[in-house]
Amino acid sequence: MAKVGVLLSGCGVNDGSEIHEAVLTMLALDRLGVERLCMAPNIDQRDVVNHLSGNEVSETRNVLVESARIARGEISDLADISAADIDAVILPGGFGAAKNLCDFAVAGAQTEVHPEVLRLLQEMHKVGKPIGAICIAPAVLARALGAFKPEITIGNDLATAQILESFGARHQECPVDGVVVDQRNRLVTTPAYMLGPGLREIAAGIDKLVQQVAGMVA
Amino acid sequence: MAKVGVLLSGCGVNDGSEIHEAVLTMLALDRLGVERLCMAPNIDQRDVVNHLSGNEVSETRNVLVESARIARGEISDLADISAADIDAVILPGGFGAAKNLCDFAVAGAQTEVHPEVLRLLQEMHKVGKPIGAICIAPAVLARALGAFKPEITIGNDLATAQILESFGARHQECPVDGVVVDQRNRLVTTPAYMLGPGLREIAAGIDKLVQQVAGMVA
Repeated sequence: MAKVGVLLSGCGVNDGSEIHEAVLTMLALDRLGVERLCMAPNIDQRDVVNHLSGNEVSETRNVLVESARIARGEISDLADISAADIDAVILPGGFGAAKNLCDFAVAGAQTEVHPEVLRLLQEMHKVGKPIGAICIAPAVLARALGAFKPEITIGNDLATAQILESFGARHQECPVDGVVVDQRNRLVTTPAYMLGPGLREIAAGIDKLVQQVAGMVA
Repeated sequence: MAKVGVLLSGCGVNDGSEIHEAVLTMLALDRLGVERLCMAPNIDQRDVVNHLSGNEVSETRNVLVESARIARGEISDLADISAADIDAVILPGGFGAAKNLCDFAVAGAQTEVHPEVLRLLQEMHKVGKPIGAICIAPAVLARALGAFKPEITIGNDLATAQILESFGARHQECPVDGVVVDQRNRLVTTPAYMLGPGLREIAAGIDKLVQQVAGMVA
């Protein structure tokens, strides 16, 4: 049975993993009979956002600990996982991907990817294991693998896409129920809540992404 | 278009709403074209649990604020919602249902339901609007509506079921992909993670529950 990593970045769209995208990824894997291995970096979140008010609050939360809420406690420290442990990896979106897995949300063109995230993505890419990324998470791929000219989508936000292209990525517009597949680099991306509008539409794209990723493993 | 309330109790299986159950409820509603109205009580959580270690930690979090993570900020204070605002209501599970919506997790046979939760459930029941409850959340119904001898399931945990029967409920064993329908009281319940084992199985039960509840509205 294939084992696919799910790289989380917290728990909540504004400071962590987008919860719907993460759960729909896990559901699609489960429906395909694919085992999942949830993981997250063991670091403090960049910030904590009150999701009712939308305001940043003066709290400290740990990315691994908060991600464990989505994973129901079944989660590994990213530092303990290498490409040898998994057949593929999928990054759900949410601001956590752009705040905790890398700093795209604040650094833009100067983005740096968290070293452990960079290590795992480079390991996976080097051995040809597929990588999926949802919503804004393709920004992480664009920066980590920019030298390989990854073909990705973040939907139709062309200003953001332009920054990703400055990293070396090639952006393709894509509808919410579609995916962009980079066969050469073994990457699959889908816009999800970069476009919305709701759960059924993002589920269609995420289902396709998971099927493509699982198909690359098989 | 029907509008169904989703009554959340925080964000995370051990101290709030079970995230998978909540998201699958919202997905099923969205796929049926039913509008959702997420809500939660504006109170402190009974406790905060580190979902990585499983240990209680000395933090204070607000049920409404944390529930807003699942709802992507689109959520109402339960105190502002009455039966007139919605056609039905569904309670996902997780320990939050038994710690924050009522105190079943600590009080057992002496359980009290939070006054605002009790008010809404009694209003809904009085006007014959359907109520769905998932996982351990039927414990809230058992206590709030015990006088009406509600027929419910929490799966096959007979020790817990016995306490719910002491409230007046009648318990039926039910598999994870099934539902128990109380036509007289217009209640639908499904065991979800009271039985598990995984997302695809609980999705089957939750899909049926949402279809039954929506069907009672139509």
